[in-house]
Amino acid sequence: MTSSAQGPSRPGRRQLLRAGTAGAGVLGVGAAAIGLDRAVRDGPPASASPGALASAEPAPQGGASVPFYGAHQAGVETPAPASATFLALDLHDEVDREGILRLLRLLTDDAARLTQGRAALADTEPELAAEPASLTVTVGFGPRLLERAQREAPSWLAPLPAFEIDELDEQFTDGDLLLQIAAEDPLTVSHAARMLLKDARSFTRVRWVQRGFRRSPGIQAPGTTMRNLFGQVDGSANPQLGGEHFAKVVWIDEGPFAGGTSMVIRRIRMDMDGWDEADRTAREQATGTRLGDGAPLSGGTEFSHADFEKVSAHGFAVIPEFAHMRRARGVDDGEHQEIYRRPYNYDVAPPAGSSAISESGQLFVAFQADLAGQFLPIQRRLAELDLLNEWTTPIGSAVFAIPPGCAEGEYLGQSVLE
Amino acid sequence: MTSSAQGPSRPGRRQLLRAGTAGAGVLGVGAAAIGLDRAVRDGPPASASPGALASAEPAPQGGASVPFYGAHQAGVETPAPASATFLALDLHDEVDREGILRLLRLLTDDAARLTQGRAALADTEPELAAEPASLTVTVGFGPRLLERAQREAPSWLAPLPAFEIDELDEQFTDGDLLLQIAAEDPLTVSHAARMLLKDARSFTRVRWVQRGFRRSPGIQAPGTTMRNLFGQVDGSANPQLGGEHFAKVVWIDEGPFAGGTSMVIRRIRMDMDGWDEADRTAREQATGTRLGDGAPLSGGTEFSHADFEKVSAHGFAVIPEFAHMRRARGVDDGEHQEIYRRPYNYDVAPPAGSSAISESGQLFVAFQADLAGQFLPIQRRLAELDLLNEWTTPIGSAVFAIPPGCAEGEYLGQSVLE
Repeated sequence: MTSSAQGPSRPGRRQLLRAGTAGAGVLGVGAAAIGLDRAVRDGPPASASPGALASAEPAPQGGASVPFYGAHQAGVETPAPASATFLALDLHDEVDREGILRLLRLLTDDAARLTQGRAALADTEPELAAEPASLTVTVGFGPRLLERAQREAPSWLAPLPAFEIDELDEQFTDGDLLLQIAAEDPLTVSHAARMLLKDARSFTRVRWVQRGFRRSPGIQAPGTTMRNLFGQVDGSANPQLGGEHFAKVVWIDEGPFAGGTSMVIRRIRMDMDGWDEADRTAREQATGTRLGDGAPLSGGTEFSHADFEKVSAHGFAVIPEFAHMRRARGVDDGEHQEIYRRPYNYDVAPPAGSSAISESGQLFVAFQADLAGQFLPIQRRLAELDLLNEWTTPIGSAVFAIPPGCAEGEYLGQSVLE
Repeated sequence: MTSSAQGPSRPGRRQLLRAGTAGAGVLGVGAAAIGLDRAVRDGPPASASPGALASAEPAPQGGASVPFYGAHQAGVETPAPASATFLALDLHDEVDREGILRLLRLLTDDAARLTQGRAALADTEPELAAEPASLTVTVGFGPRLLERAQREAPSWLAPLPAFEIDELDEQFTDGDLLLQIAAEDPLTVSHAARMLLKDARSFTRVRWVQRGFRRSPGIQAPGTTMRNLFGQVDGSANPQLGGEHFAKVVWIDEGPFAGGTSMVIRRIRMDMDGWDEADRTAREQATGTRLGDGAPLSGGTEFSHADFEKVSAHGFAVIPEFAHMRRARGVDDGEHQEIYRRPYNYDVAPPAGSSAISESGQLFVAFQADLAGQFLPIQRRLAELDLLNEWTTPIGSAVFAIPPGCAEGEYLGQSVLE
């Protein structure tokens, strides 16, 4: 078991194989330049195997699967697929430690099967399990679950401190148990979510459901960083999947949660109408990056080192003091923290009776080894000063402890709870 | 301009081309057997062009576009892509005939650009327009729009008669103007929807928004009929895209709406908990088809002719009298009508405070030349007797008249309104 990126495996069955295209070199060629994230996500093409039908059609990707067992849970260092549902569940009052362990055994068994394209036990729609489409199921614990299971919660496992920018709505906040269910296909996600909820409902009630999307598979070239609904290139500064740097940023290295991580999920409403009133210069100053290609305003490409010292002919910082990227990186505070963001877009119907034409934003999801030492300083700086705050409002917030992965025969969270 | 299927064109730009794979035969080989719908959807692969980079990666599909101008609007005889948003708008009280024409000119211009991967005029996020991902925008008229534009509405353009099975919620019902916005990518859909709504908002308010999904591009082999959230193969009986039979079923052939069609969109809630209690035999009897492969219970494959005369050893009809497929086809009424269904799944958060674990179903969308002669008899029969009604409830319903397509320089609906 290693900490390398868990990319989807090759589609395993019922597939038409593309004839004789060499895929072996793909990861090697452009990964460093274009960001491993998408290069891994799009994966090597299926190669021809004996007896396979030679066909001009690409192999269907529904059969692609991500390994379930391992040192870490899948769904963190896994390239973010197109569709995700985040579920927060609250334990019923009568559920005790034994009940929690029983629940986790059930969910683990379901996830182990569904992620590999096998129906869950008592799956009433087994046909919908046949295309895992790189499905991952990631489990997280809220403080009350650990308390009820008679285990000490990590000191950082608590709601984030209140920030002045927040306008939190309880319907998107906190929770005892988190399920992150993600796949390249939304039908796969719906089926898996329902199957897990059916097994969870005698132990828990649904606290909140948040569905999000990224670009569909195959829409953009490998290595393309996603744009958010503001049109911004979003995610260029992420650590690359795989390797030691990612491990250092994301995985906890000691204590009961060793091999796990901390997860923050915040629902960030984006004020699309207000954003429309900002011209391109204001927008670029707000982020510190160019809208066209996501490069820092100091120049270069999306992945270039930002020159925060650079000043304009008028003596002003080219990447202004209030720019999101400058604040996020702690340039003017002599600090530098990193987190790993794995966000999704949301776009839902405006509330009935509202005159709004859209209700959308981002499910901001961040993983980091040290919530207090990495995430909080960044969030504090951004809450204090970040021009983007003009157009964004956190309306939901939750923190979960992600236990490490498990081996076959174990259940998720076992090393924490036993 | 022909009535042949409007499949996506080859990706037009910024593409990596797959080297030298022959695509010409794809449509010819398996289309009859596997259903043209998906064969066309997945389209012939891009062939190598002079100077193209030979690469093992499939070409990104974001650049694929569907022609906007033509005898018919795109988005009907176009293979249904992965993501769709349906918007019903109501005209502001003060909007008169001139206002309606102005609005349609604006929407036509936006749609003509966005579907071809060009930013709309005054598009504040032009970068989000760069991947049309087979985007189509289809416009439909409700009765009040035509009345306000001083044109006679077709006699059939009215809310459907009340059916006993209905439990309609006003928030998903009726509307003056329909926009069906569909693409292989949900971010493309979100951007297009917002752009169109920005231009529409001085003329209209949003009456309802319904988002739906089908399988992501590339997940299943070409020709695979989608399963719905009940796990049923859904859509096998559709007329094949392209050709005379489809034209006869769908396109109106005379009067102001010649080249157009009628559209019914109904939000069908699926009782997932109730469905879970039905065993596989009950489920198969409810539809008259096998869950495993969608074949009629009389045998064969998904596309086999159903044998409604076949009886079991006990003398009962193998495809029972109450089975959905038997009722839909009018077997026992000496009738036979066809419609073209182009449905999407929905799966949203259960209402706050509800103990439900899911809230999902189907956006049933049907197109037919003759609403009264094709759709209504089918719907009446199904409302009267169809075992599937046990688990499905129509909670929204609307009818729109889809005007024909337009040529460059014209606007959508021009032939109807001028």
